[in-house]
Amino acid sequence: MTSERSVEIRVSEIFGPTIQGEGVLIGLPTVFVRTGGCDYRCSWCDSMHAVDSRYRDEWQAMSTEDVWREVTRLSDGKPLMVSLSGGNPAIQPLGGLIDRGHRHGYRFALETQGSVARDWFADLDVLVLSPKPPSSSMETDWQAFDVCLRMSGGRPQTVLKIVVFDEADYAYAKAAAARYPQLPVYLQPGNHTPPPADDDNAAIDIDGIMERTLWLVAKVTEDRWFEARVLPQLHVLLWGNKRGV
Amino acid sequence: MTSERSVEIRVSEIFGPTIQGEGVLIGLPTVFVRTGGCDYRCSWCDSMHAVDSRYRDEWQAMSTEDVWREVTRLSDGKPLMVSLSGGNPAIQPLGGLIDRGHRHGYRFALETQGSVARDWFADLDVLVLSPKPPSSSMETDWQAFDVCLRMSGGRPQTVLKIVVFDEADYAYAKAAAARYPQLPVYLQPGNHTPPPADDDNAAIDIDGIMERTLWLVAKVTEDRWFEARVLPQLHVLLWGNKRGV
Repeated sequence: MTSERSVEIRVSEIFGPTIQGEGVLIGLPTVFVRTGGCDYRCSWCDSMHAVDSRYRDEWQAMSTEDVWREVTRLSDGKPLMVSLSGGNPAIQPLGGLIDRGHRHGYRFALETQGSVARDWFADLDVLVLSPKPPSSSMETDWQAFDVCLRMSGGRPQTVLKIVVFDEADYAYAKAAAARYPQLPVYLQPGNHTPPPADDDNAAIDIDGIMERTLWLVAKVTEDRWFEARVLPQLHVLLWGNKRGV
Repeated sequence: MTSERSVEIRVSEIFGPTIQGEGVLIGLPTVFVRTGGCDYRCSWCDSMHAVDSRYRDEWQAMSTEDVWREVTRLSDGKPLMVSLSGGNPAIQPLGGLIDRGHRHGYRFALETQGSVARDWFADLDVLVLSPKPPSSSMETDWQAFDVCLRMSGGRPQTVLKIVVFDEADYAYAKAAAARYPQLPVYLQPGNHTPPPADDDNAAIDIDGIMERTLWLVAKVTEDRWFEARVLPQLHVLLWGNKRGV
């Protein structure tokens, strides 16, 4: 039997506190634990440095204790929201970290596409399920997605967050929302200029993001889809492609 | 006795649906009922056309029924969030409108500085209390503010939203949050270029807003104020000073 102490979490980066730039927790001070590795390869991935094995050398195998120490160092031991993101953080053993943090008043949000389920989903405070639309070139396995929801046991605050680039993505988002009417929906205008993993200063198409946000606002309002929230990535507007903020 | 049918609501504008640009409902499709008249004169007011009596000629005295008809027309009778804003909408007789809308599944959020309390606060779905910091040149009457909270009876989802321009405003926000530890806090970076009431196309200081957002993020994270959310006005980033969006 492997004890939680000895499991290793593959970490791409731990940074913060900074504000959450997306979705239901937008604006909230957060420490981010970005894990390395992903079972998806979305065409427009904005965190390729945490996905592509070419960057594997930058990833660190850390114990639960090491990750926890870094989270508490960054936050001076003052409880806050910890975002578990990636890559797909669901492929990492994060249950021990969540238990550890909860004992000290920290809260945990997981961002995942919903392709891999874990029993510790039920221990999360917030579960952000982000199924990937056609523009990603990925195909959604709704059965796997349903298992994720089932594993969460309805305990965390659970929302859908869907990236939308075009009409096909929008139709996908509507269908996903119709499939899970109980889940609040956040629509996120896509970013055609994701950060190249090795260039913090690459140009970013702010005008394009703004334009797609306006288009999406027009879509949901003309469509009378009044339950959907439309939120661009605030951190991209504020910091562009810079990592670690 | 005045029946609800015959009360008159002083309306500056009714527009939407568009997304809410601020605070706890950010991103949500909303119809805005902006009432005319205010008991405050904030130095940086961004809705002077709904405050200053010089614009009184633009305001319309409307019956509850007329306002309700316009809200349902704009939303095609499909229930959505209605934001009651101003000016100070608390000085208008809005209880009948809320009752009317609730019968059809609409929801209501009120934005007010908390200077005037109404018994219908208890019927709201969302109560956004926005006490004005020193830069507004207004003085907060905390006793009146407490009456607003008491009137709401703890029934609506209630939050604090505080505009912050500078260190003095920040200190005020911290003190307000400490006074009401039960209320979630939204900090909103101030806009030094509020829309002139008669010029949709006036230049807006987006860089300044972004800069103050970054400053505010640094403040709350360095201060370890991890409960405060920092959100710039999304509609200003998207539309600048344009009215009716």
